[in-house]
Parts: sequence; structure tokens; C-alpha cells
Amino acid sequence: MENGYVAVDTDGRVTGVAADLASLGVNVSEPCRKSNGEDVEIVDFGDRLLIPAMNDLHVHASQYRNQGIAMDLELLPWLQKYTFPEEMKYADTGYAERMYRRFVRDLWRFGTMRACVFATSHTESTRLLMHLFQEAGMGALVGKVAMNRNCPEGLSESVEEMLQGYEELIAEFNNPEALVRPIVTPRFVPSCTPEMLRACGELAAKYRLPVQSHLSENKDELALVQTLESIWYGAAYNRYGLFGQTPTVMAHCVYTRGKELRLMKRNDVMVAHCPTSNLNVASGMAPIRQFLDEGLRVGLGSDISGGHDLNIFRVMVYAIQVSKMHFLRNHARPFLTLPEVFWMATKSAGSFFGKVGSFEPGYEFDALVIDDSDLNHDHYSLLERLERYIYLGDDRQIVHRFCRGNEIIM
Amino acid sequence: MENGYVAVDTDGRVTGVAADLASLGVNVSEPCRKSNGEDVEIVDFGDRLLIPAMNDLHVHASQYRNQGIAMDLELLPWLQKYTFPEEMKYADTGYAERMYRRFVRDLWRFGTMRACVFATSHTESTRLLMHLFQEAGMGALVGKVAMNRNCPEGLSESVEEMLQGYEELIAEFNNPEALVRPIVTPRFVPSCTPEMLRACGELAAKYRLPVQSHLSENKDELALVQTLESIWYGAAYNRYGLFGQTPTVMAHCVYTRGKELRLMKRNDVMVAHCPTSNLNVASGMAPIRQFLDEGLRVGLGSDISGGHDLNIFRVMVYAIQVSKMHFLRNHARPFLTLPEVFWMATKSAGSFFGKVGSFEPGYEFDALVIDDSDLNHDHYSLLERLERYIYLGDDRQIVHRFCRGNEIIM
Repeated sequence: MENGYVAVDTDGRVTGVAADLASLGVNVSEPCRKSNGEDVEIVDFGDRLLIPAMNDLHVHASQYRNQGIAMDLELLPWLQKYTFPEEMKYADTGYAERMYRRFVRDLWRFGTMRACVFATSHTESTRLLMHLFQEAGMGALVGKVAMNRNCPEGLSESVEEMLQGYEELIAEFNNPEALVRPIVTPRFVPSCTPEMLRACGELAAKYRLPVQSHLSENKDELALVQTLESIWYGAAYNRYGLFGQTPTVMAHCVYTRGKELRLMKRNDVMVAHCPTSNLNVASGMAPIRQFLDEGLRVGLGSDISGGHDLNIFRVMVYAIQVSKMHFLRNHARPFLTLPEVFWMATKSAGSFFGKVGSFEPGYEFDALVIDDSDLNHDHYSLLERLERYIYLGDDRQIVHRFCRGNEIIM
Repeated sequence: MENGYVAVDTDGRVTGVAADLASLGVNVSEPCRKSNGEDVEIVDFGDRLLIPAMNDLHVHASQYRNQGIAMDLELLPWLQKYTFPEEMKYADTGYAERMYRRFVRDLWRFGTMRACVFATSHTESTRLLMHLFQEAGMGALVGKVAMNRNCPEGLSESVEEMLQGYEELIAEFNNPEALVRPIVTPRFVPSCTPEMLRACGELAAKYRLPVQSHLSENKDELALVQTLESIWYGAAYNRYGLFGQTPTVMAHCVYTRGKELRLMKRNDVMVAHCPTSNLNVASGMAPIRQFLDEGLRVGLGSDISGGHDLNIFRVMVYAIQVSKMHFLRNHARPFLTLPEVFWMATKSAGSFFGKVGSFEPGYEFDALVIDDSDLNHDHYSLLERLERYIYLGDDRQIVHRFCRGNEIIM
């Protein structure tokens, strides 16, 4: 809408969008009042773009230091030489604070106001990360990572330690209305014994907590899960109550087909599509058009540091491009369009956090104001301006960021 | 090299690289002198990265306005609705100047000091673009685009008009030592009658001018060329003296195999690999590992506006990712590594412009100074710093730019 208005209530929820103030029930006078007599503050963003803020459905905060390095390695040496040694450093809360502060600030910089985050297995630095999100006023589901096999000693916890850590975090943070909440986070099936997975599922059920993990990213991983659990990947999570019994998001789903796809649909398990990571890690490209055709819910994830870019606008571009590679092989399924990936990053991903990601009435006002004057140097339509910002812009053009109605300033 | 020195002569050529001044024959005294008594100016860039500047082997300056829009369209409607109408505007030199100034400045911003550029068929605005490069002090091979079929009237020229325009530009610019020179530019076989192609080849031979065009990007295009010329694509260019008879660079080469590949090798025709464009236009992914194995010379191109990003560092990342998609299908050919794509964007692409793209003795000093302090927040190795800059950095970190020994300031 050109030169429109978004009306936001004092509790941070959108009450309407319109081309003129009168249709929002506002009398333009000094001071402005609504028809019921309430004062109205009007903020004029001029010719800037006002869009819903970004949501990142899959990101490893604890791999922030490794963002953009070791991309020439394959998955296994990358995990062993870079990922696990890095995560072990988070036993030190001083180190964690230094990295996590930068991480939260960078999310903010790129306009991501909500994220599903993997921390590490360390309870204290996970708590610290949650405090940093609280301080910032941004939304996050933060996961202490449960893992007790196929990993270095320093990252492994017993089931009891895992539960104890979660109980502490839950006691402090589990307000269903809060912006920052815990999310049950088994790393993935190969890292967790059946006892660990069962305990995670029970924890999620007990406190009605959401769940996140990784699913069907890589063919070797699929075979390994089959060996460990004697069943297919999604069914393994499902067996332990980690597959939609509470709201669940699974990252990657590159090889999700048939039974697994149908179970995700039936259980309303959401897909965190990480196209940048798909290309960097070279494990395969998730068939998102097929997922959408089948009615799965899909959002986007940056997957730092398998993905290299925290900027969800860039991830949108990659989502289109990965989809075009599917299209190249099979012209029967059209590639994803800009409006579709924009929707995936906003309203679709936002649904995992509540009524988030749209300016429809009742939605929380998470928004970005974009000053694209340096990109808008000729006669561009509104849609072209948005497309140019998505393809060419960066954090420099984001001039205001709102989460749940509050401007977030750092 | 950590804390090294690059020695540059007064004519802008590198004379050596060393870890200490003494091995470069410099006595560190006030004022600094070389052993032969000449004064030496020493510039200390501290902890910054000093690397060769970027070279872009394929970019359409005249599609600058369309950068980052209409990406949801397929090739044909995109050409008809966006590309051709846009290029027709360059009949107006006022419009051309407004766009070309921004274009040259953006190349500069992202650290590209040399480029092979497509202008349009309009002689006057092509001349203007060449003047803008001259003013800037940057290197460019600029092509007035020859085309006389399958295109709108406003872009079509007769063979005589084409030749007349080129003669004017050559008279003004054809100094083999100059930074800015003309390059013979038939748009591609489908846009040029045999007479036009023959005239282009004769022109290149007459003035020993380099040649650029498009090759084997898309399967429909291949079939069309076969119909028009009754021969395969590369052979059609070769027939007219446009395939290595003078230095030649061909963009895309997605479907170049067998005979065409061997002819390119034999004639030393260079490949401009445009991975961003490969993904956006969804015509296919060029098999670069195969080209390197066969001994072809390969550089990188941004291909604005089929590609959306003018930043060659981003194009490097895409080159690795596209290569990983080939690797995914066939593990027998390893994917391109960071050092390889860095070499492609510097020394390999630079070879099309002369001794450009390296700090070896005798090379022209084209260089970037990168202040990566905001990305270098932990203990990273030199190679990791370079990798992080390539994956995460942008124009903000480029603090000095040199072309042929001169600092280029805008």
C-alpha cells in the first residue's frame, strides 16, 4: 500500500492498516484523538518502506565465531575440527558473553526480531544468552542443547544434568507470554541416546514447551539414524514425543519425503528451510515447492555457521535460487517467487512465535522501517523497491526496528 | 604473508614482495632511500589486509537500473519486458550519464578495478561510459553492442552504422597501453546476422581488438544458434574470427563440452563464469572444475542484471556454492575451494587485462586495503580473515583502492 498507515495499540498489537487515518477511526486534529477520545501518536516515516520484521527459524548462536570460515571442509571434519571445539568454549561464561552480545547485536542489525536459537549444552551460558535477548527486547526461543553421545566429553551431559539445567531455565523463563522462552533442543538423533530423547519429549510435554532439532539433512545421517533407532528419522523423533506433540520446528528436511512428509503434515511439524546452508554444506537442496504443495508450514533459517549469512533477506534470495535449481531439473514444479519467500520469512515463520509476521489486526507489531533512497534512484514500483532491497540492500538501509510494538535500539 | 611489504615502482608496477624492507633493497632511514639512492615512500596499512583488486569479466553497465528486479521472470519475458526497453533508453545520453556514473561508482565501491563491460549499441553513450572510466582512473574494456536481428528497432544498427560507431571510438581510444579500450562486442549469435558477425571479426582483426560475447548459456539458445548458423555455437563465432583470433572472453559456457571445449582450449578463449546469474536465470550451472581440469582459463563475472550482485567477493562465494552442487551429483570432481575462486577473480581474470591480478614482480599494482577489524573480533588466521571478509564483508571494509599504482578516490 502506498502511503498507508498501520495502527498499533498500546499493547503492541496491530489494530488495522489503511490508506487514510479516518478509516482507522482517527480524527486528525491537535492532539490527534481516536473516536473514543484516546490520544494517538502519529509517526511519519515518509517515503520509507514499512514491512514486517524478519524471523530466523534456525540459528546456532554458539557458532557465531565460526561464521564464514572453514567452508571448504565437508560436514564431518567441519564438526570435529570447528564446531564441537568452538561449542566447548561456552563452558566459560566470559567467552559466551563476548560472543553472544555480538550475536544478538548482529541479529538486530539485520532486522531479525525473533529467532529459534541453538545455544550449547552449558546451562549458564544459555541463561546468559536468554538474558541478553531479554535486555534487547527481542523475541527468542533459546535451546540448551541436549546431547550425550557421538560428541566430545566437554559437550556431553547425563540425562539428569540435562533435566536439572532445563528445570532451572524453565523456573526462570517459562512464561508463555514472554518474548524469551526455552525450547527443548535435542541436538539431533545421532547425538542423543534413547533415554536422552525420551527425557526431552517428557520435558516438552510436562511444560508444554516447543521443540527444535535437525531432520534429514544428509544421506549418511539418515543411514546412521536408521542404524541407531531401527526406524526412519521422523519416526524416531515421533516415538519420543518430539515431533509435533508440542509445537515443533525441524531444520533442513532435505531428504524428507513420503511417510516422513505425511507425518510432518499430520503433526503440524514446521520446516526451517536453510538454503544457504544447503549450498555451503553440500548435503542437498530441500524441495520446498513440494512441501508447500503438500501443505507443510515452512519458514527460513540462517543456520549460522553452516549458513554464512545472518541476513534473512539474503536467505530469501538463496531460497529462490535453490528452488530454481529444482525447477531446472523438473519444470513441472514452478520455482519459489519473491512474494512466497517473503511470506516464508515473515508470516509463515512468525507463526512459530505466536501472532507474528503480519500487519493484520491482532498481530504483534514486529516491523522494520527501510530507507531505500540510495537504491531507489529511478522510477521503481513498490514491489520493485522491495525486491531491490531484498536483493541489494543490507543493514544500512534499516533505520528502525520494532518488536511487539517497541522500538528496539542498540 | 604477515606484516609484509609490497614494493611498487613509479610506473605502478610491483617490483617485489617481502617480509622486510631490507630484502626489497630499502634502507630504513629518514628519508627512506633505495640502495640506488632513489627516495622511497612507505605507507603503513597496519593490520589491514592488502590483496589484489577484483576483476569483473562480464557485466552489462546498461542494465544497471534493472539490478535486483524482475528476478521471478524467465529469460525470454525478462529480455523483452525489462532488458531491451531499458537499453533503448541509452539513446539519451543524459539518462546514460546518470546511470553510468552510478554504475562506475558502484564498481569502485566493491573494489572492482577492471571490467569487461557491455554498454549498448549507442555510440555516444558508450563513449560517455569510456570517459567516465577514464576520469575515474579505472580499467575497462568497453563494448558498443553490435546487434541487428531479433531485437527492437531502437537497438538495431546496420553493419555500416556499427562499423562507423566503432571507428569513432577506436580513433579516440585505441591505445594498447591505455586503461580504457574498446572491445568488439557482438551481443550473441542470435542477435547478429552473418554479415554483422563477419564485420565484427574483421574489425577485431584489423585493430587487434579483444572480443567478448555470450556462449552456450541456455539450451533453447543452443538450438536457435544451430538453426541460424547450421553449426554448433562456438564454431559459429570461430567461423567469423570471433573465437580467440584476438583475445576473447565468452560469458556463461554452461553447456560447453566436447568439441566446443577443445576449441576454446586450442584458441585460448577465456570463460567468464557468472554463478550468480546461473542461479538467477536458472539456465544451468557451468562445470568449472571440468574447465580447469581441461586447462581452460576462467575468470568471474557479475553479469548484472542477470546476476544481482556487483560485488565480486559475493560472486566468489556463489562460484564455490555452484561448484558444490556439481559435487553433490558427482563426488568424483572436487568442488572449487576458496583459494581457487580467489585466484579466478584476481590473477586469472586479471590476465585478460595484461599483467594484472597478482603482486608478483612486473604486475600492475591493482590492490585493495581491507580494514576487517569489525569481522576480526577473535583469534583468526590470515586465511580465515580473508575467508570471513569474502563471505561476510562488503564495501564498508574496503578503505583504499589502487589501480595501476594510483589510489582511486571517489
